[in-house]
Amino acid sequence: MTQAKTGLSHFDDQGRAHMVDVSDKPVTARIAVARGAVRMSAETLALISEGRAKKGDVLGVARLAGIMAAKKTADLIPLCHPLPITKVSLDLTTDTSLPGIVVEATVKTGGQTGVEMEALTAVTIACLTIYDMVKAVEKSMSIESIQLILKDGGKSGRYEAKL
Amino acid sequence: MTQAKTGLSHFDDQGRAHMVDVSDKPVTARIAVARGAVRMSAETLALISEGRAKKGDVLGVARLAGIMAAKKTADLIPLCHPLPITKVSLDLTTDTSLPGIVVEATVKTGGQTGVEMEALTAVTIACLTIYDMVKAVEKSMSIESIQLILKDGGKSGRYEAKL
Amino acid sequence: MTQAKTGLSHFDDQGRAHMVDVSDKPVTARIAVARGAVRMSAETLALISEGRAKKGDVLGVARLAGIMAAKKTADLIPLCHPLPITKVSLDLTTDTSLPGIVVEATVKTGGQTGVEMEALTAVTIACLTIYDMVKAVEKSMSIESIQLILKDGGKSGRYEAKL
Amino acid sequence: MTQAKTGLSHFDDQGRAHMVDVSDKPVTARIAVARGAVRMSAETLALISEGRAKKGDVLGVARLAGIMAAKKTADLIPLCHPLPITKVSLDLTTDTSLPGIVVEATVKTGGQTGVEMEALTAVTIACLTIYDMVKAVEKSMSIESIQLILKDGGKSGRYEAKL
Amino acid sequence: MTQAKTGLSHFDDQGRAHMVDVSDKPVTARIAVARGAVRMSAETLALISEGRAKKGDVLGVARLAGIMAAKKTADLIPLCHPLPITKVSLDLTTDTSLPGIVVEATVKTGGQTGVEMEALTAVTIACLTIYDMVKAVEKSMSIESIQLILKDGGKSGRYEAKL
Amino acid sequence: MTQAKTGLSHFDDQGRAHMVDVSDKPVTARIAVARGAVRMSAETLALISEGRAKKGDVLGVARLAGIMAAKKTADLIPLCHPLPITKVSLDLTTDTSLPGIVVEATVKTGGQTGVEMEALTAVTIACLTIYDMVKAVEKSMSIESIQLILKDGGKSGRYEAKL
Repeated sequence: MTQAKTGLSHFDDQGRAHMVDVSDKPVTARIAVARGAVRMSAETLALISEGRAKKGDVLGVARLAGIMAAKKTADLIPLCHPLPITKVSLDLTTDTSLPGIVVEATVKTGGQTGVEMEALTAVTIACLTIYDMVKAVEKSMSIESIQLILKDGGKSGRYEAKL
Repeated sequence: MTQAKTGLSHFDDQGRAHMVDVSDKPVTARIAVARGAVRMSAETLALISEGRAKKGDVLGVARLAGIMAAKKTADLIPLCHPLPITKVSLDLTTDTSLPGIVVEATVKTGGQTGVEMEALTAVTIACLTIYDMVKAVEKSMSIESIQLILKDGGKSGRYEAKL
Repeated sequence: MTQAKTGLSHFDDQGRAHMVDVSDKPVTARIAVARGAVRMSAETLALISEGRAKKGDVLGVARLAGIMAAKKTADLIPLCHPLPITKVSLDLTTDTSLPGIVVEATVKTGGQTGVEMEALTAVTIACLTIYDMVKAVEKSMSIESIQLILKDGGKSGRYEAKL
Repeated sequence: MTQAKTGLSHFDDQGRAHMVDVSDKPVTARIAVARGAVRMSAETLALISEGRAKKGDVLGVARLAGIMAAKKTADLIPLCHPLPITKVSLDLTTDTSLPGIVVEATVKTGGQTGVEMEALTAVTIACLTIYDMVKAVEKSMSIESIQLILKDGGKSGRYEAKL
Repeated sequence: MTQAKTGLSHFDDQGRAHMVDVSDKPVTARIAVARGAVRMSAETLALISEGRAKKGDVLGVARLAGIMAAKKTADLIPLCHPLPITKVSLDLTTDTSLPGIVVEATVKTGGQTGVEMEALTAVTIACLTIYDMVKAVEKSMSIESIQLILKDGGKSGRYEAKL
Repeated sequence: MTQAKTGLSHFDDQGRAHMVDVSDKPVTARIAVARGAVRMSAETLALISEGRAKKGDVLGVARLAGIMAAKKTADLIPLCHPLPITKVSLDLTTDTSLPGIVVEATVKTGGQTGVEMEALTAVTIACLTIYDMVKAVEKSMSIESIQLILKDGGKSGRYEAKL
């Protein structure tokens, strides 16, 4: 699963952090999908599910937070390139077997580098927003299994997680 | 473990999202500690550990990203109050049994509401930054078990996670 | 209605813009309420009203945009002081006589200067967000009558708009 | 005047907010012009007009706030795409018949989606900045008639407001 | 002039960067004054001086950029605490003997740590803004002698530069 | 050294600030290099140099602050165009003859306008970050000689500073 390499591209020969030069990479269509989950008690999950109709749309707020966070990725991740995002969507589904909420984000761009970090940032901030809105009820929730599900486009080609 | 309540304070009686009124809460000393981890292959972990000396300080960059992200919490989490943070520190340790990096953040403030979200945001952005810097080597890393470890101060008092 | 004065406090004796010195003003409880409206055709308004249930919660998205914008006021208005907001809420109601959506924002702080600009910024960004989400359907919408309805707290005391 | 359609593009089939996919739209030259006004008493308007020379350049500060706000549009409007703005200008004129200040913004880009929101945001923040600088003199000012005057470029073609 | 100490407070015992804990420091009135200059040719300086009246207010734009930058200090300087700034003013004067523009910023707060970085940030961004507006005419300008002139308030007391 | 011209392009015919229209300029590869220095006592410089190994990596933190600041340039400099940066690197070297730290930043883009301001902003914020981390030891440090060393690409062609 691991593609062992000898170096970390975000550092130069002398180990100094830099924003990698992508000037000569072509602009190509790129997509990334990331996923994660907020695990909580069944009672808390029920509260969110019911609330959707009557008490407040937790998932709607988290979805919006994720979309807005995707646009702030280059501001948050020090060595990330700014990218002209062309699409962001988030899917939040309740999973009673977890129990919890599963968050999946899809991000697209036409750019010189990929949008993996944008998708991962969208998922993460959506999960944190769920935590924020529900923490008065259950502080012991945890955010789990944030990972890249798919990326495509660019020289390194397609990657699909083995789930 | 769950403190079941009947409502979600971030929504009003009609289910509309709002920033909760904390005007009448006293300013008290508050602290929060959050933790999470980036799981990776043993080879990738070794690369980071060695790199610390020669090839680039992954953990140093992630630590700084976490500190800066704590200051952006109210910008990222829609219903969070802006707070005058008085301390942020991050501890990043390699764990060969995981294998991976464990990230722990401690945040303090003197304010009218807690800094749980600031500590959780610092941890997640530090984890995402590790992912960003190492993803060329291993895309299958995952971020795991982001949770609140401790909070203290304010009316709701002390909370400690049962780990 | 006008409180004629001889000077503009945001400029010094030589007409240079500055952020007014409020160092010696006491910290007091402050509130501001602002209001505005998006005027549109009856058909567009009906689309939003129906959509609330089925096609997408325009007002929910606008409300969140307004809350988040209130926190960015000092970033947007050059001479505004940063303030620790303690409450933001937005009320969006459909008005078939306009026809359109009326937006009202309430903001509180404990600070050395008022939150009028925060309330006005929340209203205008919520209105712009409605425009953004509905513009594919009607570009001729307009934003109308953005004004301060109420402010209280601080040396200058209470102000209520004569509506 | 209304282009009645059956749906709101910012929501998917299930009514969930998303940032619309513009990946396949061509990059074209786009322009948008928006307009609005701050209505005030004749005395307040006179104060601003005179001040221009001696007491402080209210309109110069508002112009700059509008230009800077145009660059923050995607940060403020949740479902807006980030765009590489190539031009922003603002025209602020005193109108004694209103009485008040009329603000007009022109924004250009070469992008995959239009700059209507950028132009409207520039106008709105310029109006709010005028309010901020003059509110010590007159709190009863109001912001009126913010609307799109012109857009061109892109598949939907030219739109001109019927004024 | 140098106050030799044995350690750097922004790092812990193990040399890891952190945001210093100021939780137990009292809130006191604090002021800082910083200064710097943009050196240019006499012709360029003359262009700016004349322009003030007719061709465009370079110094007015730079002043505003400096004020707004002071509010962004904690966003720019990684280990800076966010502070509730209560005053910012900038003084920009032409100096024909340099030749160039001298920029001086004064910042105040009531907080737990000083505003030296806010004053220095205001000066540098004002200088960079002057550079930006005049660079089409002279690229060889340089920014010189940015330094802290005065700080007062807090435990470490008053500091005045020996000029 | 001075390229005398008759006007300042950031202002229109009537002296009003605007963001210059670059819509019709071609997208070309562009590079800019800027340089500056923080002057300090020999003792302070020694503290930083030693600290690199044991007490804390001042230069590593400053480098990261400079990289992140380059991405915020359009947010800080009012009339700057937002640009898709494709590379940022910073070189920080100790200079015992100064004595102090010399900071050099290189920025690249493929865009319609140059990245001089991005390179200068990176240098400046890196210098300010050094000041911040060392100010407890020596407040009399100064930032000196921030200037453009090289730019290339675009219609105006290559510029190299005469050092």
